[in-house]
This record gives sequence, C-alpha cells and structure tokens, in this order.
Amino acid sequence: MKSDKISEAVVRRLPVYLRFLNDLQKREILTVSSQELGQKLDLNPAQIRKDLAYFGDFGRKGIGYDVTYLIEKIRHILKLDQQLNVALVGAGNLGHALSNYNAYLKDTMKITAIFDSYAPKVGRKINSLTVQPMEELGQTVREQGIRIGIITVPDSEAQNVADILIESGIEAILNFAPMILKTPPNIRVHAADFTTDLQSLAYYLKDGKEESGNEEQ
Amino acid sequence: MKSDKISEAVVRRLPVYLRFLNDLQKREILTVSSQELGQKLDLNPAQIRKDLAYFGDFGRKGIGYDVTYLIEKIRHILKLDQQLNVALVGAGNLGHALSNYNAYLKDTMKITAIFDSYAPKVGRKINSLTVQPMEELGQTVREQGIRIGIITVPDSEAQNVADILIESGIEAILNFAPMILKTPPNIRVHAADFTTDLQSLAYYLKDGKEESGNEEQ
Repeated sequence: MKSDKISEAVVRRLPVYLRFLNDLQKREILTVSSQELGQKLDLNPAQIRKDLAYFGDFGRKGIGYDVTYLIEKIRHILKLDQQLNVALVGAGNLGHALSNYNAYLKDTMKITAIFDSYAPKVGRKINSLTVQPMEELGQTVREQGIRIGIITVPDSEAQNVADILIESGIEAILNFAPMILKTPPNIRVHAADFTTDLQSLAYYLKDGKEESGNEEQ
Repeated sequence: MKSDKISEAVVRRLPVYLRFLNDLQKREILTVSSQELGQKLDLNPAQIRKDLAYFGDFGRKGIGYDVTYLIEKIRHILKLDQQLNVALVGAGNLGHALSNYNAYLKDTMKITAIFDSYAPKVGRKINSLTVQPMEELGQTVREQGIRIGIITVPDSEAQNVADILIESGIEAILNFAPMILKTPPNIRVHAADFTTDLQSLAYYLKDGKEESGNEEQ
C-alpha cells in the first residue's frame, strides 16, 4: 500500500470511523455493516466500503466488518499504533481547552508539552503539564521525540512559532490560527480553523423563502 | 444550481478558497490563477478549476479568476451574503476561545449569544456578550433569528444541548463534543472534533525507520 495513493478526504474520514468503532467496541459489539456505519456517520455505505477497501478486503458479505480487526487496521494505517508525542504552543483559552482533550486521545497520542512565550503563563499547570518557555522547545522536542505540533497562538505569532517548531524537527502541524502558514513541502500542515467549519455549515441552511417558524428572518 | 449536487468535500473547500481570496483582496490583488491558488492551498489546480466550475464559468484562460467576483460568488453560494446569527452553548475555555474568533468571521456571520447551564458563569461578560442561562435559549434564538448553534459543553451534556437547540428551531450545529449526536435528518451537524484532525495528521508522518534526528523514537 502506497501512502500517497490515499486521498486526503479518505484519510480525514478514517479517524471518524475509528471513533465510532471504538464506541462499538466499548459496547461489546463485534461486527458492523457498512449500512450501519453509513447511517451513524451520515455517509453513503458504498463510499465507506470503497474507503475501507483501500486497505485490503476486510468486510464479509452478510456479516459485515469485524470491529476489533478494523480498529487495529485503521490505527495501524494512521500510525496510531505507535507512541506519538505532541507539543502545544499557546497556553490561552484554546490551548487550555485542547489539553483537556488528552483524555479522549488514545494513550499512544498525547500532548506531552505545552509552551508559551508570555512569561506570566510559564510555570502554570494545565492539567498535569507545566507551561514551559519557548526557549525550552527545541530541547524538549528532541528529548521527548515529539513529531507533531499544535499552534494556538494569535495570528501575528503563528508563523514565527511554526518556524521554531520546524527548526526543532517537528514533521506535522495542526494550525488553529486563522491564517495560511508558509512551510517547506516536507512539513504537513492541517488548518483547524473553526470559521471554515462554520462557513461550510451555512451552505446547508434552507433558503430563506422556504423557512417558517423563525420570526426574524 | 441544485444545492444537493455539490459534494461535502467541495463545500468544505469553499471557505478555504474564500479566506485566501479575502487575503488577496486586502492586498489589492485583482486576479488569481488556479496554479497560484493550488500552490498556496496545497491543492491540485485541476481540482480547484473543477470545484469552481460547479458554480459557473468564472475563470479566463491566461488571466485567471477575478478575485472580487469570485469572493461574491462563493459568499453567495455559502449563504454568507445574508445576516447569520450563531448561538454558542458552553462558556468554558473552548467557548471563550471560539468567541474570540468573532473578529475573523465576516460581519454577516456572528456569534450573537452565549449560554451556559452553570449558574456562576451566567452573567459573565465574554468579549461583548453576556453569558445567558439555558432557560433563555428558546426565546433568544427566536428573537435573534439564530439558525446555527455551536456546542462546546462536555460530552455528557452535548446530546441534551443539541435537543434543546433543535427544539428552539436551529437548523445546523457545529459540535465540538467528541461524540456522535442523534439528530433528525433535517438538521445538519458538523463534527469539529480536533482529535480527528490530529489523528489524520499522524498518517502523514514519515515511517519511523526513515527518521533521523529524533533520539527517542
């Protein structure tokens, strides 16, 4: 299987499948059909079968997919079957909120260090982590083998933080600053800007004329 | 143009185009080619041409796209050319962080009300908004003609909040709680779970064996 053959759209759906499968496993459900997956995840079952077929022939007609096996496969494909340490830069409200998600991340992927350039924030505890100064970033990234960085600083600082992360050896960035980072081609950047989520949601609103019940339209 | 003909993947890319185009407009750049767009947004130029062709024949060979015209068109398609009020439920760190994004949202789309069920939070100011009790949600949604809700409450409360939002007449939900909501088919829900963003990012990491420089792999 060649990594670069799988489209980004598929890669973005795999964690969604994984989350639902983990939920099934918790409820001790052993198999699931593409119909059930489709219904729960608001996706076409044919699309799901096609997505999963990228990774080999998992499903069995009339029985469906083996939940445990599918979880293992997806975790392997997403490299979640290895320890992945994550650094977060920006200990504001958003950084704080994201560090709370640590509980939801599988234990192999974890935010293990938090940095901020603002002196009064350094030394504070966020959950079990102590906010470190930016000067310690390079050494901590190397020591902990951190490969992924999350940027939750204001727009004006984001590029500078990205440069520092990349210099320290990070390979991938999740960027919450609503701006486009300039990065070398070997660095993978995903934008996690919630404004684009919100704007694409607006597309699905019914047209005003068909509306009723909203008095102020 | 039929709304339901455009795939979700395209709808999700349109706000990304829009953000970049707005940036060009600010810098007084009048035209842009699909090559430039592709380079900046890490997308195939052919894909971009195909996406934009859904909405009519915008581009001109050798000149490119008219920035202002394209902005107008995308804003119209995404229904951003009308006033869209948004309610946010959950005035914690994440809710606080999101309300700061108001400045980045175009003035037609805005978080206009914040709610929380926790009494000590009610009455607090977050930017220019006062946190309201859940009991006021229905009336405020009707009075302000709010059509979109954002959920930033803990997992255990998210379904209940979704039910209340839907009952009050909201049409679309951006859900930050890392769980799958049960909603009627006429309600559009987008999951904004950052763990899935992070997990899909892991896919693009280089395989361990090829790595160097990380001492603790």
